[in-house]
Amino acid sequence: MESLNVGLVGMGNVGSGTLQILLENQEQLAQKLGIPVRVAAVCSRSIASRELPAAAVGVDRYSDWRDVVGRPDIHVVAELIGGLQPARELIETALSHGKAVVTANKELMAREGFSLWQAASQAQRPLAMEASAAGGIPIHSVLREGIAGDRVVAMAGILNGTCNFILTEMEKAGRGFHDVLAEAQQLGYAEADPSADVDGLDARSKLAILATIAYGCGVPAEDILVEGIRRVSDVDFNYASQLRHTIRLLCVARMGQQGLSLSVRPTLLPKDTILASVSGSYNAIWVQGAYGQDTFYYGRGAGPLPTGVAVVSDILHAGRELLSGRENRVSPYSFKQLTEYQPAPPETFRQPYYLRFRVENRFGIIADLAAILRDHHIGIDAVGQLPITNWRDLPFVITVEPATEGEIRAAVETMSQLDYLLEPPLVMPMFAGF
Amino acid sequence: MESLNVGLVGMGNVGSGTLQILLENQEQLAQKLGIPVRVAAVCSRSIASRELPAAAVGVDRYSDWRDVVGRPDIHVVAELIGGLQPARELIETALSHGKAVVTANKELMAREGFSLWQAASQAQRPLAMEASAAGGIPIHSVLREGIAGDRVVAMAGILNGTCNFILTEMEKAGRGFHDVLAEAQQLGYAEADPSADVDGLDARSKLAILATIAYGCGVPAEDILVEGIRRVSDVDFNYASQLRHTIRLLCVARMGQQGLSLSVRPTLLPKDTILASVSGSYNAIWVQGAYGQDTFYYGRGAGPLPTGVAVVSDILHAGRELLSGRENRVSPYSFKQLTEYQPAPPETFRQPYYLRFRVENRFGIIADLAAILRDHHIGIDAVGQLPITNWRDLPFVITVEPATEGEIRAAVETMSQLDYLLEPPLVMPMFAGF
Repeated sequence: MESLNVGLVGMGNVGSGTLQILLENQEQLAQKLGIPVRVAAVCSRSIASRELPAAAVGVDRYSDWRDVVGRPDIHVVAELIGGLQPARELIETALSHGKAVVTANKELMAREGFSLWQAASQAQRPLAMEASAAGGIPIHSVLREGIAGDRVVAMAGILNGTCNFILTEMEKAGRGFHDVLAEAQQLGYAEADPSADVDGLDARSKLAILATIAYGCGVPAEDILVEGIRRVSDVDFNYASQLRHTIRLLCVARMGQQGLSLSVRPTLLPKDTILASVSGSYNAIWVQGAYGQDTFYYGRGAGPLPTGVAVVSDILHAGRELLSGRENRVSPYSFKQLTEYQPAPPETFRQPYYLRFRVENRFGIIADLAAILRDHHIGIDAVGQLPITNWRDLPFVITVEPATEGEIRAAVETMSQLDYLLEPPLVMPMFAGF
Repeated sequence: MESLNVGLVGMGNVGSGTLQILLENQEQLAQKLGIPVRVAAVCSRSIASRELPAAAVGVDRYSDWRDVVGRPDIHVVAELIGGLQPARELIETALSHGKAVVTANKELMAREGFSLWQAASQAQRPLAMEASAAGGIPIHSVLREGIAGDRVVAMAGILNGTCNFILTEMEKAGRGFHDVLAEAQQLGYAEADPSADVDGLDARSKLAILATIAYGCGVPAEDILVEGIRRVSDVDFNYASQLRHTIRLLCVARMGQQGLSLSVRPTLLPKDTILASVSGSYNAIWVQGAYGQDTFYYGRGAGPLPTGVAVVSDILHAGRELLSGRENRVSPYSFKQLTEYQPAPPETFRQPYYLRFRVENRFGIIADLAAILRDHHIGIDAVGQLPITNWRDLPFVITVEPATEGEIRAAVETMSQLDYLLEPPLVMPMFAGF
């Protein structure tokens, strides 16, 4: 092999960033791999009308991905089109043609990653997916290589840059959710249909991928408890601040004796923790290992170039594997085989919670709520109420001592039947480490 | 190969931690490698009097490392004895016997790492050294794999846990250096002879290793500008706090057009940055990539188990390489070949500085110092003076606008001749990102 020949399929944000890095960083990539990394082909349905960088001389252009994965001189195919189909067919076809495959596809890898890895194993070809979750942070290689000797106990991550941008702006400027969302949409930080981000679905897919790598069990994304940030209001930041906390959309994975607990939800974080300092569109992941204890990783949440770095790093990884001529490929999941996902029962973990109510004020509300909490064996930590501005829509907060998710859910269900509640209580865990 | 057979040489802190993880985490290690990882042998000069964990049944004990590296059934030798000799001889002998080698040896790898890698290349055996610098943070694999596609522009690291513990305690409690050092020695956080830590020599070796991996040039540790923390006083924390900064021993690497600039020195960091939030004995590294931009990595500064995780992760890495049967080994430096180290001229980078003086007070001091700075074309940013308690030993501070190291050194040399200075000015850069 005189050069590692790469075909890029998909010329959107990630594809353009990847192409730029492969062209500009050629010299160093060759020094790392030992042979040049050459972009042989790029592919996009609209390739005819696309302008490529001037350095892309000698790069062949295609509008049909089949022409790229079928080319005999290409060693690595990067799937950068996203979505389930034709991405899956593309990857399988590339593997069957003997290509190594690199993918940035979050949805596909969260849903069907392991069966694709089995296809890659059978084809004895590398499959790499660093860019598929938290592309700006090299967390896949950290779990697969850097701390592979450890046993992950728990992880907490901020994995959606859009939500983190919105929450940070709400906090800084005391602004409401809809106001900041509209601005984020104007700036291009949020999609016209923001639900994948603000409802936590994007973060959930990422958590499914990372938990699969960390624990070696096939986590179905749809089994993960998810709550988005739509209900978090400026009032909540106000109360959180009084408690010296901030609010972030936190993805949490914890392994217990009886299984794995996974959730994506707005969460209170103490202000003096390193996770709370993650602001704007950044991502971060806190890993608790049985032996290495706490490590923390931080980087850009998205963007063509940060994600492109993940793709190009995977291309190098695939190139090293191909050069070795090995048959025994490194698993992108770190584990050779995945075990079955075993969800932890909801009574496994205890943590403090923040409950925020909106009520039409009347006599005896605190007494009612306190009685319900008592009946569910939940201790009250504090009751907080900002100066009242509207008696017909009065927000106030109760924080409670560590309880299980099951206990809290049962109490909140009982509370929701009280007729003076304007909406069901907003429940957020208070994260204080593992 | 039915199991990966490991020989551990050195049963100090790191050796004991490594042994514990290899024994306790067996199941998961086998799931990751595909075959069991078996501790075949441990070696220590005092092995006869050592108690090993109960799980260490069937582990052979040796007091002479030659017996371990000569055993034909051993695949990987972990060198955990430290120091230059006999560690070097051990590694070379192990390679010549066809063993893969994993090392936690900072001094040796900083000094002779590349020639050992050449020996490993010739022997076609893996050599891995994740534990040799910042063992609690998987920064080697991050640079080698995770962000290998990027081009590192600059790095800033807190790499010595002892110094960070001392500085954090000084800041929190307003205590003096010697006071905190004595306590750190009592607690076992600092050695009886603390100079390797507090004079920055340990951090310098670590920076040399990390810069070699990041930039692919052989950095001689002794060429790195180093200043320890002995001169940092409680007064400096007081002034730094007024400036909304804290003080950390910061290791910095920057690549410029004309070469690489490297330094280890106490540095002012803005309090609201993520690096400033690294407290106690933790380590952290900030990496600025040309494409991926900023990423940040954080973990324990030392300890048998965190360092043991790095060793065990390297053992897995070496095992994967051995199982591949490949001849084309992944370089522990990421780069296949090292280029020559090209130091940047001292006029390359400009940054603001903090200058702290101790003087016997008299009329016209500020005028003198201001004139000297003006003559060296250095702009004054601010002059700060806390309430005076002793006219004969008066500390005060001048912060200056961005200047080159060369300009600052020249100005300070002139200042040092003023007869009312009780000691040469303390010079600290003010770090505000790259």
